[in-house]
Amino acid sequence: MNRRIKLILEFEGTNYAGWQRQPNAPTVQQTVEEALARLCGHAVRVHASGRTDSGVHALGMCAHFDTMMRMQGDKFAYALNTFLPPDIRIRDSREVAPDFHARFDAKGKHYRYEIHNAPHACAIYRHTRLHVYQPLDFAAMERGAALVVGQHDFAAFQAAGGNVRSTRREIYRSKISRQGTLVRYDVWGNGFLYNMVRIIVGTLLDIGRSRVQPEVLTRALCTGARNLLRATAPAHGLTLVEVYYQEDALPDGETLEGH
Amino acid sequence: MNRRIKLILEFEGTNYAGWQRQPNAPTVQQTVEEALARLCGHAVRVHASGRTDSGVHALGMCAHFDTMMRMQGDKFAYALNTFLPPDIRIRDSREVAPDFHARFDAKGKHYRYEIHNAPHACAIYRHTRLHVYQPLDFAAMERGAALVVGQHDFAAFQAAGGNVRSTRREIYRSKISRQGTLVRYDVWGNGFLYNMVRIIVGTLLDIGRSRVQPEVLTRALCTGARNLLRATAPAHGLTLVEVYYQEDALPDGETLEGH
Repeated sequence: MNRRIKLILEFEGTNYAGWQRQPNAPTVQQTVEEALARLCGHAVRVHASGRTDSGVHALGMCAHFDTMMRMQGDKFAYALNTFLPPDIRIRDSREVAPDFHARFDAKGKHYRYEIHNAPHACAIYRHTRLHVYQPLDFAAMERGAALVVGQHDFAAFQAAGGNVRSTRREIYRSKISRQGTLVRYDVWGNGFLYNMVRIIVGTLLDIGRSRVQPEVLTRALCTGARNLLRATAPAHGLTLVEVYYQEDALPDGETLEGH
Repeated sequence: MNRRIKLILEFEGTNYAGWQRQPNAPTVQQTVEEALARLCGHAVRVHASGRTDSGVHALGMCAHFDTMMRMQGDKFAYALNTFLPPDIRIRDSREVAPDFHARFDAKGKHYRYEIHNAPHACAIYRHTRLHVYQPLDFAAMERGAALVVGQHDFAAFQAAGGNVRSTRREIYRSKISRQGTLVRYDVWGNGFLYNMVRIIVGTLLDIGRSRVQPEVLTRALCTGARNLLRATAPAHGLTLVEVYYQEDALPDGETLEGH
């Protein structure tokens, strides 16, 4: 009988053309499916909570697959990790109900964007932090981050290529923090349009460099005019931190530190 | 007239056989000296605050060199970074007094060791964190970390190959902290013997796994018996965070967060 296994994956996206299979470039999906085929002895299709762009990282990508293998759910992580390259790790595996779906059942996601704000680029974290050498108006960025919270039509926050019925989404929390040269943007929402987080971050950086006022975000939410938001932050600063499957696991704003 | 320039360097040590020049392996010193030769048009010798082992990283390695080039001190960082690979960055450059010496004038150093404590290895930080899958007795590790503080003879904490007149050193602060799966050990001292930090961390991990009691550290300090301390933690978890040149810049224990 077929069993459904849920995986939590961490990967450094630097050497992959994103999650989804591509004809001529290595992707995370292909690499995981090849490892699963070696483990299970048959072709396996993996369904993820969503795609990630080329260069984007994940601490907690979620995916599921079906197999007839008789192995305890948590053992798949150990077995798969022996077949995967070190820049992809399974953090957790468990058997779930046969009707669980990593994409359709997702209730929310947490993304993080990291910026190295200093005159010179950093070496150690160069693959996961965007280098911004200009001084940033942090207070203005904080005001901007607060403006996207709530239920809005995010039509202006979508890159060409997005293909969804509704562009209405809810942002539960949107927070910018700074420690030394590290500026971190964390956002939790029930769903994100194509490039939406990178467009928010690109705009927050424009705000931080005093190129635009924070209120441009409100105007974009009201009018849906994409040309108000001109910047899309590069992929390599972005990490999918977590995918939520239960409404009550979503952040209430106080239990989020430590992520 | 010769001018002396002080550099602060960050590097990811993964792809280097440590700091010091080797006959048949790329090193950080060689890479920096080659970049300097291209910039200055003549061979340049760089003197560092000390060596680092193969695979060890630095956020704030310090070094100096002499040149006749007429360029503002802070501009060397910008110019050098254009010749360096992305895993080595100059964070700061400035002209110093001609008798400044990166090694002989160093008053203290801050090292950090990072551990990923979870059942499965991590992907994103795999080059800078040691994976330890066993649960760790954190309270015992904290007790152990406190025992090395103060002036001691650290003869038992030195790998074969060390060659120093005195093995007496002072540890100013020794602190272990934990956030989620990340366990971090920070240590500040006036100097460190060869492999001393990695031997302390290896012993703290033995303590955390309940293989030895914290008091083994005190016995090693009293007796100088190296065979009491059997573990040397791997290089890739270690980072040289900062080198201090003024006595009064050394940590007093309260102003250290944010490093």
